[in-house]
Amino acid sequence: MADVVFLTGGARSGKSSFALKRAERYAEKAFLATAEPFDEEMAARIDKHREERGDRFETFEEPVDIDATLRVIPSSIDVVIVDCLTVWAGNLLYKLGSDEIIMNHVDRLLAVLQNPPCNVILVSNEIGMGIVPENAMARKFRDIAGTINQKVAGASTEAWLLCSGLPVKLK
Amino acid sequence: MADVVFLTGGARSGKSSFALKRAERYAEKAFLATAEPFDEEMAARIDKHREERGDRFETFEEPVDIDATLRVIPSSIDVVIVDCLTVWAGNLLYKLGSDEIIMNHVDRLLAVLQNPPCNVILVSNEIGMGIVPENAMARKFRDIAGTINQKVAGASTEAWLLCSGLPVKLK
Amino acid sequence: MADVVFLTGGARSGKSSFALKRAERYAEKAFLATAEPFDEEMAARIDKHREERGDRFETFEEPVDIDATLRVIPSSIDVVIVDCLTVWAGNLLYKLGSDEIIMNHVDRLLAVLQNPPCNVILVSNEIGMGIVPENAMARKFRDIAGTINQKVAGASTEAWLLCSGLPVKLK
Repeated sequence: MADVVFLTGGARSGKSSFALKRAERYAEKAFLATAEPFDEEMAARIDKHREERGDRFETFEEPVDIDATLRVIPSSIDVVIVDCLTVWAGNLLYKLGSDEIIMNHVDRLLAVLQNPPCNVILVSNEIGMGIVPENAMARKFRDIAGTINQKVAGASTEAWLLCSGLPVKLK
Repeated sequence: MADVVFLTGGARSGKSSFALKRAERYAEKAFLATAEPFDEEMAARIDKHREERGDRFETFEEPVDIDATLRVIPSSIDVVIVDCLTVWAGNLLYKLGSDEIIMNHVDRLLAVLQNPPCNVILVSNEIGMGIVPENAMARKFRDIAGTINQKVAGASTEAWLLCSGLPVKLK
Repeated sequence: MADVVFLTGGARSGKSSFALKRAERYAEKAFLATAEPFDEEMAARIDKHREERGDRFETFEEPVDIDATLRVIPSSIDVVIVDCLTVWAGNLLYKLGSDEIIMNHVDRLLAVLQNPPCNVILVSNEIGMGIVPENAMARKFRDIAGTINQKVAGASTEAWLLCSGLPVKLK
């Protein structure tokens, strides 16, 4: 039975470090990045994360169809870190638009997690604990990201909230 | 001894679903809604919530004087869900204004919770874990909502933080 | 072995009250305030906090070089509350600017916490669980504050997340 580990937490709460450490339990490791370097700040963040991982991970990049990428993960891989679901939620919203198509993509991820190709560690973010955003698009993003978190956490075998670098067991 | 259950969490964290499920322990159920459908988005959210509840709940609507509504809950009712305290905090702030009158309303709710008419499940929101809002009114709202959360959680017999649909026991 | 207690939580989550109560275990108490009363609202908040503490605490004020203040805490003191690290993070960002100098200050605090002059209770804030701020400076502040939280929580002997006035044990 494969592990499906869900990690959430605020900005700079230690989620990615926890994911890297949790992945040490497995031999052959892959990393599925959902972020695209659309500006310098993002490019710098992506580089910083890549540096932290070193060359211990085979890297895949896919902003939207992560279910398809997961389905073709080489069978030699023991664990894949998906980082992160919140950026993926934003990509779905900005690239797909329609609620129905977005939810189709979420359902396809859930289907893969039901029968995963290897152990999977999914990193997400808590973005719904601040003041309600004035911007309608931001509220919609918050709703989609929160819905994804609920569904993926529900489908996981283990879930953690990171807070100031320390893990709180959710499941 | 009646249960007074306090639930908090971010947007789309599963609070309302948890409340509905928690209420299944009791036979006759009521729902006290504090939101008013002041725009289409809010009306859609209210309709969605009403649909999820189905016709298993007697519904009451009261934006401000929820203590008075709780006092006249029919004696046939076993549990009432109050959803939600954060919208209520906003109503108090925008409709009453003065801190003293707002705090009087909070104290009146606490008095009802000391001797509740039936089991009560109160749904709230975490809104204070983002960046400090630039807007003074938003900061004030955050302070009032946080103060209400502390007081009601303190008066409850059971309290939970929902995170990605999963409950963390606070009390 | 001195206690190093790290407390975090959202706005109005009961952090300062928990800190004051936790400090009651010790006889001689001090309070290190990092906030400066730069406007009326802040002055009012500082006054309110000072009132809550009463005259049971010897008060020190230092916005930037808190490691230096901690090093010269009188040896008669049993516990010092540092309130708060998030305001301190803001002070470092606005007064020092350079990442390198900021991180030097953080390292100097960590060095003091390795060998503390007395028991220390450090109050911080969760500010990274809302929507990503549009403002680049706010994102940078969020990163620094989150990094400080991780480092100080990692160096502490005990850590708590406050939520609606109720503590969740992190460590």
